[in-house]
This record gives sequence, C-alpha cells and structure tokens, in this order.
Amino acid sequence: MVKIIGIGGSLRTNSYTQLALQVAVQRVEALGAEVEILDLRQLQLPFCDGAKEYLEYSDVQRLRDTVRNADGLILATPEYHGGVSGVLKNALDLMSFDELSGKVTGLISVLGGQSNSNALNDLRLIVRWVHGWVIPEQIAIGQAWSAFSPEGKLVDEKLSQRFDQFAQSLVDNTRKLRGVN
Amino acid sequence: MVKIIGIGGSLRTNSYTQLALQVAVQRVEALGAEVEILDLRQLQLPFCDGAKEYLEYSDVQRLRDTVRNADGLILATPEYHGGVSGVLKNALDLMSFDELSGKVTGLISVLGGQSNSNALNDLRLIVRWVHGWVIPEQIAIGQAWSAFSPEGKLVDEKLSQRFDQFAQSLVDNTRKLRGVN
Amino acid sequence: MVKIIGIGGSLRTNSYTQLALQVAVQRVEALGAEVEILDLRQLQLPFCDGAKEYLEYSDVQRLRDTVRNADGLILATPEYHGGVSGVLKNALDLMSFDELSGKVTGLISVLGGQSNSNALNDLRLIVRWVHGWVIPEQIAIGQAWSAFSPEGKLVDEKLSQRFDQFAQSLVDNTRKLRGVN
Amino acid sequence: MVKIIGIGGSLRTNSYTQLALQVAVQRVEALGAEVEILDLRQLQLPFCDGAKEYLEYSDVQRLRDTVRNADGLILATPEYHGGVSGVLKNALDLMSFDELSGKVTGLISVLGGQSNSNALNDLRLIVRWVHGWVIPEQIAIGQAWSAFSPEGKLVDEKLSQRFDQFAQSLVDNTRKLRGVN
Repeated sequence: MVKIIGIGGSLRTNSYTQLALQVAVQRVEALGAEVEILDLRQLQLPFCDGAKEYLEYSDVQRLRDTVRNADGLILATPEYHGGVSGVLKNALDLMSFDELSGKVTGLISVLGGQSNSNALNDLRLIVRWVHGWVIPEQIAIGQAWSAFSPEGKLVDEKLSQRFDQFAQSLVDNTRKLRGVN
Repeated sequence: MVKIIGIGGSLRTNSYTQLALQVAVQRVEALGAEVEILDLRQLQLPFCDGAKEYLEYSDVQRLRDTVRNADGLILATPEYHGGVSGVLKNALDLMSFDELSGKVTGLISVLGGQSNSNALNDLRLIVRWVHGWVIPEQIAIGQAWSAFSPEGKLVDEKLSQRFDQFAQSLVDNTRKLRGVN
Repeated sequence: MVKIIGIGGSLRTNSYTQLALQVAVQRVEALGAEVEILDLRQLQLPFCDGAKEYLEYSDVQRLRDTVRNADGLILATPEYHGGVSGVLKNALDLMSFDELSGKVTGLISVLGGQSNSNALNDLRLIVRWVHGWVIPEQIAIGQAWSAFSPEGKLVDEKLSQRFDQFAQSLVDNTRKLRGVN
Repeated sequence: MVKIIGIGGSLRTNSYTQLALQVAVQRVEALGAEVEILDLRQLQLPFCDGAKEYLEYSDVQRLRDTVRNADGLILATPEYHGGVSGVLKNALDLMSFDELSGKVTGLISVLGGQSNSNALNDLRLIVRWVHGWVIPEQIAIGQAWSAFSPEGKLVDEKLSQRFDQFAQSLVDNTRKLRGVN
C-alpha cells in the first residue's frame, strides 16, 4: 500500500500551512494511501550543521526513518521572503539521498499576500537535487487568512478541486513510479 | 563610513563557508569599510515561527539591530541540496523589510562538489523580496576542501581576484547607493 | 542626462506588454530621463545562433548600439509558460557583456492568469549573468485584459503607484550607480 | 512502443548541444525506444506572437503534431546568459498544454564555461508549467569544447555513464508514467 508522509514547514500555533497540509492528507487518505503527518512543531530537531549523526536528538532519526520508509511526500511550506521557510529547509538539510531519492513529492505553499510560485520553485529544485520526483500539480494558496472556514475547510470550490487533482496525481503517480498499490 | 555585516550560514566547526566569509570581510575592510561578522555559531537563535517578537532570545534583537544599522551585507551560505542552508534562511526569516530593505548585499556560496549558482540564485531572489540590492558579482566556491590552504588562504589566484572584484564592487556600490563614505 | 531603453518582449499587435512598457516609459520620462523604446515588432532580428556578427541584419547592430549607449533598461515580457518570452530572450542572446554589463534594469511581466514572479525571476538572473544591475522594485501584472482602460491607462490606482515607485527607483538608482544626471 | 522526441536549442552549425542530443538519443534508442530528432536548424519556425495558428509556417504544425504524438522529450539547450536559449524557449512557446502536458522530459544543457544548472532549472520550471514531468537525472556539460572527441563521442567516462543513467531513467519512467512499452 502506497505510503505518503506529510511535512509542514510552519511552527505557528494556528498555521494555515498545517491546515492546508491536513486537507491534502485527508484527500490522499481517501484515495487509499497510508498517510502520516510529521509535525515539526512536535519534533525536537536541531539546526543542521552538516554532521551525519545527531545522537542527542532522537527525532532526527525518527524523521529520517519515517521518510526513508515512505513512497511519497507532501511538503507544505509558508512562503517567507519569497522562499521556503528556514524551518522546512533545515528539516530537509537533515536528510539526504538515502531518505529522499526516488520519492514522489507534491508541493504546497501558503502565504499572506498574493499567491506566488517562488517557494514551490525552490522546493522543486531542492527535491530534484536529492533525486526525488515532484508531480506537476502544485498548490499555492495566497491570502491564506481568507482561504479557510473557521472549521478549517477550504472556502473556494475551485481551490478544493485543485486539492483533489493534486491528491489524485500524487497517489496515482506514486503508484506508477514506485510500483506499489 | 560604510558599514558591512557578514553572516555565514554554516554551523560546522571548521566551516569553509566561514573561511570564505573571513576572506571577503578582510578585503572589504581593506577598502575602508567598517565590518562586523555575525557568527551564527555563537548566536542563540530560535526557529522562526512567524512571530514578531522573540523575547526569550535576546540574540534575535541583536541580529536585527546590527543588520538594521548596516549599509550592506555579505551573505555566505553552504549549498545544501542545491539551496541556501536552512540555518541562514531561518536567520533571514527572523528579519524583514525593516532590517533588509535598501541594503546592498554580496553573495557567496560554498559546496563540496562542482560549483553551482543555485544557492546564490535563491539568495538573490530572497534579498530582492525584502527590497534589498544584490551586486552582480557573486562567488561560488566548488570543491571547497581544495580551495583553502591550511592557514585559511585561497589557493587559486583567479579565485582570489574574484574576491577582490567582489569586495570592490560591494564597497563602491554600497557607497553610491547609500550615499555614505 | 540619464538614458533608458525600453524593450518589450511581445510581438502581439495589441500587446498588454507593450502597453505596460509605455506606461513605465512615460513615468520615467516625466522624471527627466531620456527614453527610447526598441519595439521588437519593428526590428528585423534573426534567431541567435551564437555567432558574433549578423551582417545581413542591420537591426542587430542597431539593437546593440542603442543598448550599449544607454545607462539603464526596462525589460517587459509576457510570461509564456512561466518564463520570459523566447522573443525577448533571443534579443538578449544577441547581446552580451559589452552591451549589458553595468546597466541598471527594471523588470515588468504581464500575463493573462494570476500574477506570478517566474518570468521576473528568470530575467533577474539573466541580467545578473551579464553583470547588469536589477532594481528591487518589479512589476507583475496578472489578468492583463482587465488592467488597462480602452485608452491604455492603468485601471487600478495601487498598480499605478507601483509604476511610480518603479520609475522613481529606476531613475534615482541609475543616476547613483552610473554617476549621471 | 515508447516514443521520444529530441529537440536541440542551438542553431550553430557545429553545435555541441546537437552533439550531446545525439549521444542521448542513441542511448535511448538502444533501450528500445522509438526516437526522432526535431532539428530546429532545419525547421522554419516564426517568432511566437501569442497567436494560436501560424498558417504560413507548416513547420509549426509539424512541431506540434510530432510532440503531441510522443510520450517523452529530450530538451537540450545551450546555456546563453545563464538561461535557456531564446531559440528553444520560442519553440516551446509555440506549443502548449495540448502538446506538452503529461509528457516525460529529460534535460541537457551545454555551455562553454564552468557547468551550471541555471538553464536546466529554467527548463524544469517551464515544463512543469505546462504540466509535464521532468526526470530527476539531468546533464550539464561545462567546457563543451573539451567534452567530445573529433568523432563526436564523449571523452569522459563518468559523463558517459551519466548519459546512460539519464537514458535509462527517461525510458523506464516514461514507460511507467505513460503505461507504454
């Protein structure tokens, strides 16, 4: 069974990025994939200093093991200063080819202003660097404060459909590329 | 007098990025600029969670004050996974327009493999996002392990000349754009 | 007197890109700069084949001479497929360091859908490659069909203000960087 | 049978880009794919003006039909000014979702100086824009004048192996993603 890990790159308490990730995860689950969210707000990760081992931080190993055993990823980032958040990039820096190569990834970005592809472009090139796949479908949510209902549901029907297409593509193509069900 | 702050995005003990930053800083100083290095290995910075204040971390304020009072910046990053290090991006995430807008920046990247402009491209777009200037001259050091002598000097004369041009452009153009001496 | 050349990367008859370029050019002129538009619809340029000379195309020399004698540039491009138009990139390919190095450039992109910075990012990195400067202020016009009045004026006051800031920055900073009036 | 089209973005007579494309095409063919090269030096293509039809240029239709009927693409570009050649971008501008969406693409860039990923990054984002796939394996050939023997063979064994991996990935993954043999 195809296994997808979601990682959200925001540490904010009421994070739209984490909301968007949850929406994506639910839709991927509905298509029969096994999904797990790694919430960086609950992991104790150090800043990456280029070392291979971080023995004092067991969550580094947990992050690495969880991602290595997955077929695919959803990476969701707030767009900070027209780029991926340092928090998410640092989590990716703590992994490498062993964990990320050959995985199939879907990308989501969230920002307060007008939507933009900068952080998505960054992530696409970063994932490529470690020889991962990135699906063509991607989601940039602008003016995030107006995108969700108080219950955390997407207000806009068209955006909701994009999440459907995103989830479908991620699950279908992870199955094809990884040869799993 | 023109004031330049150097920030190195590597936390490694024997960091080639920090070495490269020191070389650049010395050359900028020799041209009559006042220079200070903010060593992220010695600052206690939190992961950015999008908050405005980080009262428990006085180094956030120190970072912000130091950069806000400068005319220009040297940003040096190791290239991790074809991008800026999470460590440096996080430090930039902790600042904003107040600190970075209108500043004049020079960019350096360092990597173990063949040199590349990916991290430099990232930084150029990030600095632009907060309305900073980036000088056209930039330095990517590939195969960093072979670039420095045991005393931390540049082995290659051509690369050394690039540092001279980089420093000259940074100081000259910061003076022009900022109207300082 | 500071001299700015505007180049529009669209060959369409009723081109929003050319309209946007005209708006920018008028505002730059109002600030006391000398401005000339090179309309690629009226130049006979070949596809660049990497040669140095294109003796059969006198407009190549005209393009090169005009840009070489300028202090600054406005490059306006339609965003085709999330990138700069082939037409504009080809015109840039026909020039090199001799024409573009040290020039100060402002960037505008125009697209039918939601605005985006991809083509602007491309152009920023391309201009850097030939050692040109790019001002931090840039303009992306989304849904271009709704941006202009029938008389070719900007409908949205905020967007109009961005053009003012863009023009001011381009003229001011070209003067500073080039040491002209 | 999986069908791959190669397009080279250089019009130079003795083009290293076209040489690199031929090497890639031969290896893809050896893996059982049907391959055809569209040589832009032999097609009569206009500059794209955003129109849908180019009735005076039958080669536009030939380009579109050939690509639409393919499963995958090899795009090879000279890196001009740190970007994809205007020639290749223009050819892509003449196509759209109909031709490019869902296709699986491998990317090659060739330049005279030190190798670089800028043009590859551009192409990756452009192909994504029209909802194409790009394989993680990509090839940047620096100092192209020293890469080929007089007979047009690759001099460096390691680079030759990269072409093997590139071809293998392109053929394997096109088969998987497109469900063809």
